[in-house]
Amino acid sequence: MILARVVGTVVSTRKEPKIEGIKFLLLEKINPSNMQGKGDYLVAMDSVGAGLGEVVFYVAGSSSRMTATTEGKPSDAAIISIVDFIDINGEYVYRKDKE
Amino acid sequence: MILARVVGTVVSTRKEPKIEGIKFLLLEKINPSNMQGKGDYLVAMDSVGAGLGEVVFYVAGSSSRMTATTEGKPSDAAIISIVDFIDINGEYVYRKDKE
Amino acid sequence: MILARVVGTVVSTRKEPKIEGIKFLLLEKINPSNMQGKGDYLVAMDSVGAGLGEVVFYVAGSSSRMTATTEGKPSDAAIISIVDFIDINGEYVYRKDKE
Amino acid sequence: MILARVVGTVVSTRKEPKIEGIKFLLLEKINPSNMQGKGDYLVAMDSVGAGLGEVVFYVAGSSSRMTATTEGKPSDAAIISIVDFIDINGEYVYRKDKE
Amino acid sequence: MILARVVGTVVSTRKEPKIEGIKFLLLEKINPSNMQGKGDYLVAMDSVGAGLGEVVFYVAGSSSRMTATTEGKPSDAAIISIVDFIDINGEYVYRKDKE
Repeated sequence: MILARVVGTVVSTRKEPKIEGIKFLLLEKINPSNMQGKGDYLVAMDSVGAGLGEVVFYVAGSSSRMTATTEGKPSDAAIISIVDFIDINGEYVYRKDKE
Repeated sequence: MILARVVGTVVSTRKEPKIEGIKFLLLEKINPSNMQGKGDYLVAMDSVGAGLGEVVFYVAGSSSRMTATTEGKPSDAAIISIVDFIDINGEYVYRKDKE
Repeated sequence: MILARVVGTVVSTRKEPKIEGIKFLLLEKINPSNMQGKGDYLVAMDSVGAGLGEVVFYVAGSSSRMTATTEGKPSDAAIISIVDFIDINGEYVYRKDKE
Repeated sequence: MILARVVGTVVSTRKEPKIEGIKFLLLEKINPSNMQGKGDYLVAMDSVGAGLGEVVFYVAGSSSRMTATTEGKPSDAAIISIVDFIDINGEYVYRKDKE
Repeated sequence: MILARVVGTVVSTRKEPKIEGIKFLLLEKINPSNMQGKGDYLVAMDSVGAGLGEVVFYVAGSSSRMTATTEGKPSDAAIISIVDFIDINGEYVYRKDKE
């Protein structure tokens, strides 16, 4: 799973019927050692109700279809967790409640 | 899913029988923060009728077989959405109707 | 699917029994905007009879097992098309008959 | 499988129900020729009880669901081994008991 | 499939029960145009009895489970061939018997 920040949304009207009604979030991957964005973006389905600015991790590949939201959908990336804390070597590098 | 622009087409006569009759589009991945092409290209099957110049996102891997067009096909990339809007931090970075 | 040129072959005698009798081609990925090789190589199974110098595209991952040649084989890359034409923004960047 | 060092943990309360109760470790990929971190991080499920500072290898993709801990879970990375020794060309480059 | 050289081994005692008894080899990817290592390493299961210094190719992803050795195992990379010859544009760039 990869850490990323929700930075936006992607909206479309013409799309594969199976993905009608699904919300697509724009994610920017982050480097957890400094919590900065890496300038690398992807579009993910959301199974947890993530919002703008939140730090999440997503699952890629076939496993991204293994959530209630994405089952049977043509998905290759699904947010499965909104992150509260990240620690590296025993020090917090991210606390959601301090953002 | 990854954002890309349709930049061309790829035509072939000698091919795997299962992909006869499928249209192959050439995509260039884009960086949504500036909407510029990244110089990174791929060939995708199209499940939504995308046209030259349109911004789309495609699904990669086994999930690319989960559309009506690509089911049972040897596909690793399928366009599943033509993008209307992309916003980053509440600002539109792309509007199809303003292109 | 990714565009590549057939640049050689890879031959082995000691191998997994399931891949006995399969031809392995060496591919170099190409940048379609200038048709130059990218210096990035892979070995692919061939389902279409591609030959040295030809431009092809291959399918990666689990879908590479979905051809008559590769079904049930431990494959992660299979050539599924020999390319005749590539156009970008309405201009041919590659024509097989002009090579 | 890819070699990495356990550098931290990732904690969340809002998450996909299927991953409740699973521990998520933060890994940094390492270059085994010098055992240095590569500055490339990921989040992995843990099937072996790995701890902070340990060198492990993880399995990516659909195979990451093939452990007792991760079966049926939306996982794309699972630690399957805590490394004791790595040798390159007959010389130890890593011994857990000498760390 | 990707070309690599066997450069070492990885040994562990604490591991996922399904991989007990499997040998893990350390591979360095190679550039076939000059046969040099790329400084990019991975750990692979071995289905063909490869030894130190040999040039091999491995299969990645779900297909790495499709050998007698790796079936049902949490594998994402399995050596399926020990390479005898590689030619590029009709010239040998590698001959095992001349090493």
